[in-house]
Order: sequence, then C-alpha cells, then structure tokens
Amino acid sequence: MKRIESPKNARVKQWKKLLTKKGRDETGLFLLEGFHLVEEAIKSNAPLVELIVDERTAVPPGWNVTGVPVTIVTEAVMRAISSTETPQGIAAVCRQLSTELEGVKTALLIDAVQDPGNLGTMIRTADAAGIDAVILGEGCADLYNPKVVRATQGSLFHLPVVKGDLAQWIARFKEQGIPVYGTALENAVDYRTVPQSSSFALLVGNEGSGVRPDLLRLTTENVYIPIYGRAESLNVAVAAGILLYSLQAVR
Amino acid sequence: MKRIESPKNARVKQWKKLLTKKGRDETGLFLLEGFHLVEEAIKSNAPLVELIVDERTAVPPGWNVTGVPVTIVTEAVMRAISSTETPQGIAAVCRQLSTELEGVKTALLIDAVQDPGNLGTMIRTADAAGIDAVILGEGCADLYNPKVVRATQGSLFHLPVVKGDLAQWIARFKEQGIPVYGTALENAVDYRTVPQSSSFALLVGNEGSGVRPDLLRLTTENVYIPIYGRAESLNVAVAAGILLYSLQAVR
Repeated sequence: MKRIESPKNARVKQWKKLLTKKGRDETGLFLLEGFHLVEEAIKSNAPLVELIVDERTAVPPGWNVTGVPVTIVTEAVMRAISSTETPQGIAAVCRQLSTELEGVKTALLIDAVQDPGNLGTMIRTADAAGIDAVILGEGCADLYNPKVVRATQGSLFHLPVVKGDLAQWIARFKEQGIPVYGTALENAVDYRTVPQSSSFALLVGNEGSGVRPDLLRLTTENVYIPIYGRAESLNVAVAAGILLYSLQAVR
Repeated sequence: MKRIESPKNARVKQWKKLLTKKGRDETGLFLLEGFHLVEEAIKSNAPLVELIVDERTAVPPGWNVTGVPVTIVTEAVMRAISSTETPQGIAAVCRQLSTELEGVKTALLIDAVQDPGNLGTMIRTADAAGIDAVILGEGCADLYNPKVVRATQGSLFHLPVVKGDLAQWIARFKEQGIPVYGTALENAVDYRTVPQSSSFALLVGNEGSGVRPDLLRLTTENVYIPIYGRAESLNVAVAAGILLYSLQAVR
C-alpha cells in the first residue's frame, strides 16, 4: 500500500488536475469523494482505478475492492484534492463511464443546464423516476464536475448518462414512435393533459432561457407547468421532477 | 447621493456584517443582490432601507424608489459586500419581513432543511404552486442568508415565510380541519392516493434524516413518493415540488 504525505507529491498534482475539466478530458478519469459515492461506484461495478484513503480512515470491511490499488494519504493531501470543505476521508479515481444506449423507452433530454447542482439533481431524479437514460446536450455542465457527481448522489452509476446531439435524439425518438415533450411557456399545453406512458422523452432547458427555440420546434408537443402564485418560473430540477413523475406510467 | 470608494469605509463594514447571521439578527436587516431581487422587493413594497449602486451602473428608470437613499460605490466596495463571484452592480439593504399569518389554507412546513439552495428553492416552489405560507421550523437555514434569498428568486416577497414551532402549527391546522401530510418512507401511503384539495399542509424535512419522528407522529397522514429506479431518495426540493403540485387543487 502506497503512502503519500505531501500535497506537493506528483501523484497529488495529477489528482488535483481531475478537479478541472481539462484534466478530466485529457485523462478520461474523474474523482469521487465520500463514502456514499464510492460505495455506489463499487456496488455498480464502476471502473475504479484507485482508492485514496485518509490515514485516519479505513476502507469499510464490506467493500469489494479486490484488485483496486489503495493509496493512504495525510489529511493535508485529502484536503488538497477535495472539492468540499470537510472531506470525508475517502476518495476514488474512476474511469469515465461509456455507455451504449439500447432499448431506451424513456429519457430525459437536457439542453444547456449549467448549474452543477441542478444537473446532478436531475440525474438523481431521473433515476428515482425509473427513466432509462439521460442525454446531455450542448452547453450542459460537465457530468464529471465534482459538484455534479455529488448532486447525483451516485445515480450517474445507475442509469446511462450520455452526451449527444439533442436534435438528432428528438428525431430518433419520434421515428420510434416515442413522443418527445419540450418544456415551454408559449405554444404549450398544461402538462396534466398529457397521458401517462411507459415511453416518452422529456426535454428541459437552461435555467435562464429555457429550451432553445430550434429544439422546441422539433418536439411532438410542448408542455408547461401552471404558476398559481407570483413566481416567474420553477427551478429546472423541480420542474423536471414534477414532469417526470407526472408523465411516467404508474406501476 | 453619497459615494463610498474604500472597502474599509465604516458603512461597508456594516453592510458586510449583514453577510453573517449574527449581523442580520442584531440589526434586523438583510442584503439583497442583483437587479431581479431588488426589483422584486420594490414591486412587492418590501421595506427597503437603502440602495447600493456600482458607479458604472444606474438605477433602472422604471423603478419606484422615491425616498430610498442611494449610495454610489466602487467596484471594490460592491465586491466586498457581495456573496457572489460576479456582482451585478446593484444591492439593497432591506428590513427583515414581519408577517401575520391569517386565513392560511395551504402551507409548506419545513423541518431542519439546512442547504440554502434547497430552502430557497422550496420557497420559490411554494410561491409557484400558489401556497399561502411557508413555515420554517427549528434547524432550518437562515431565511436571510444571501444564498437562500437568491434561490427564492424573490418569492420571499410574494408569500409569508415565518419561523415557528412546527408541532404547534400542525396542531393548529388540524384543529381547523386542515389535513397535514408528513413525508416519510415508513408507515406512509403513496402520495397519489391523497385527494387534491384547496386546504392542506405539507411537512418536509432534513436532507439526510427526513422529518423528525416526533413530528411525523402528529400528522394527519404521512406520504411517500415511489422510487422506481436505484436512487435512494429524491432531493427534498424536488420532492416538495412533486407533492405540492400533486396536492394543490387544480384551478
């Protein structure tokens, strides 16, 4: 078992690069922090490259991590590679996930959602709602941004999340007879008029500007959530939750 | 019109104190940042004490701020009192809102939600869903924390948000014949079995531990949102959105 004491160690510098998009893109790796996320990765057979453990912590005995190298580090090292103020004492390097989308009947399509918390929360919500896949269009936050990963609460290991051209995906779903519902304030119908189904795609968009008009023109239908009070709109992750649970067929 | 150039000015120090709970509690004031929030405060006749404007910015001509003193500040001052990385150039000091709750038929009760973003988003969602009031129990983030205020997107000016003893409020609603629904994973019913109504209270709880068991015992009924995938739970603000829109009577 290796042991690293100094935050200036070359390995620590490599790990720290994974806190940046450039570093993640160049290596195809990303960092996971905290017991819950690392455990979800293990349970989901995610491609873990190594575990990084604070010297005052231990790998929980139940974890099946045979073959995964463990590096012991000091608190100072853990702090240096952490994106949280109070690191939990365990982290992991993981290979970025590659997924083939096959037999997708329900999907959440996300256009240019930039807030990492919103993006991660929507992936978590899609998982909870039993959606088959999440497709990230142009302008979305990076899936492997530590804040996105944290907000997914591990759901990025539970369902395929892929980058893609949303216009192409909308066309593909419609060809397969899967209705695609955009979210819009104009030329849209009350979401409660849309029948529940076990096959649909929902398209949500940027926090400020919503879904791009050129994508809204491609959908089967666009829906809105009525506002009864004086708020101008709903948070996009809240709206996605309301719509996914309303559209998903009751089981 | 006063002008302040130095972040070390005594007034600037007073404003900075409003970034802390202690400073807000001692003065009964709070800070608002950005055009949208200040505009919402003005439209809602919130008790503004003063406007703080970056020298490169101007008060929009349409704003009705007669009688509200304006202080012009340098970019350095604005940066010093801002809780965001890229201040928008306008801020305001506002007196904390005092509200009487009368004739409340629908309410969101929040037990110990600590994340400012979640708390603010729930206030925004309650506003959108046409809920009459939000009641914050013990252990919630401070309503006037700049991150909470920002996440409300101004909804804190649209509906009464008060601190209160949730056990007492639950009792009061039940006395009035208003059903109170807690959120729980055990001894709870599927939320879709609860009839829509124009009078109800919804009780949601802490991100990690949920609603306190002693409060769950006081409710009319407890509800859960089914999880179809492998997520362990939903984000509390997403759950509140799904439930409020499901419970609120269709108009």
